[in-house]
Amino acid sequence: MEGQLAHIGAGIAGLGTGIAALGVGNVAANYLAGALRNPSAAASQTATLFIGIAFAEALGIFSFLIALLLMFAV
Amino acid sequence: MEGQLAHIGAGIAGLGTGIAALGVGNVAANYLAGALRNPSAAASQTATLFIGIAFAEALGIFSFLIALLLMFAV
Amino acid sequence: MEGQLAHIGAGIAGLGTGIAALGVGNVAANYLAGALRNPSAAASQTATLFIGIAFAEALGIFSFLIALLLMFAV
Amino acid sequence: MEGQLAHIGAGIAGLGTGIAALGVGNVAANYLAGALRNPSAAASQTATLFIGIAFAEALGIFSFLIALLLMFAV
Amino acid sequence: MEGQLAHIGAGIAGLGTGIAALGVGNVAANYLAGALRNPSAAASQTATLFIGIAFAEALGIFSFLIALLLMFAV
Repeated sequence: MEGQLAHIGAGIAGLGTGIAALGVGNVAANYLAGALRNPSAAASQTATLFIGIAFAEALGIFSFLIALLLMFAV
Repeated sequence: MEGQLAHIGAGIAGLGTGIAALGVGNVAANYLAGALRNPSAAASQTATLFIGIAFAEALGIFSFLIALLLMFAV
Repeated sequence: MEGQLAHIGAGIAGLGTGIAALGVGNVAANYLAGALRNPSAAASQTATLFIGIAFAEALGIFSFLIALLLMFAV
Repeated sequence: MEGQLAHIGAGIAGLGTGIAALGVGNVAANYLAGALRNPSAAASQTATLFIGIAFAEALGIFSFLIALLLMFAV
Repeated sequence: MEGQLAHIGAGIAGLGTGIAALGVGNVAANYLAGALRNPSAAASQTATLFIGIAFAEALGIFSFLIALLLMFAV
């Protein structure tokens, strides 16, 4: 059973990857809600949209990285 | 029991895939809510809709990838 | 107990399939709310409705696929 | 204990079936809220109501299917 | 411990049955909120109310069925 428990850990980290998608979706959802209420201001906030998505996505990718490390590096 | 625990991990990662669908659904839901409130601006935000869906979907696919790796690669 | 733990994993992935239904339901719910507030614009957003449902449904089907793989392929 | 762990998995998949009911309920709830605010437009969205219910219900039935497979097929 | 683990599964499926009640309650709650805001239109949506309740209730009954099968049939 050496190393087997690490695979359960990798799966749980994959769960974290999926939950991070909620955060990314939340950023994009609120941008869209605001941009369609006030389209003329939308272009000025595109940079902020990508900043918000990038930071949330980064945490999801960290989760993914943990899963990869648990599977192949430890 | 070699490799069996990895299958539980794969199932948990599959749970993460399903949760990512919430994030994707959130983006599309808010786009639809906004587009039906202000249809004339909807076309200008289609690109953002796909950007938002793509980033959230990517994390769901990472989760799916972890499940596949746990089943067939480790 | 060979292969038995994979069945728990399949069940957890099936849980993910059910959660993905929340995302799909969210897309359709917001479309209906918007379409009944502004029926004249509803037809123009039908394509977006199906795009949103398709992406969220895809992640749920990925979850279902993981469950099937865990039951019959590994 | 042959096959017993699969029964826990079937129960977890049954939990997913129940969660999918939230998605279906969400679609119907938003339709009713909209239809009672704007009854004259309700008939035009009945098709969308059933499309939304069908896609979310399908994922719940996939969950149910996983539970049945875990109980009787594996 | 033969068959005992199936009872845990039955309990988890019963949890799913309870969660489905949230979906059903959501449909009825939105109908009531709308019907009390616009009582004259309430009668026209009674059919939809029962359709929405039926589909969400069905998924809860599937969950209940899984629990019964786990207790008496497997």
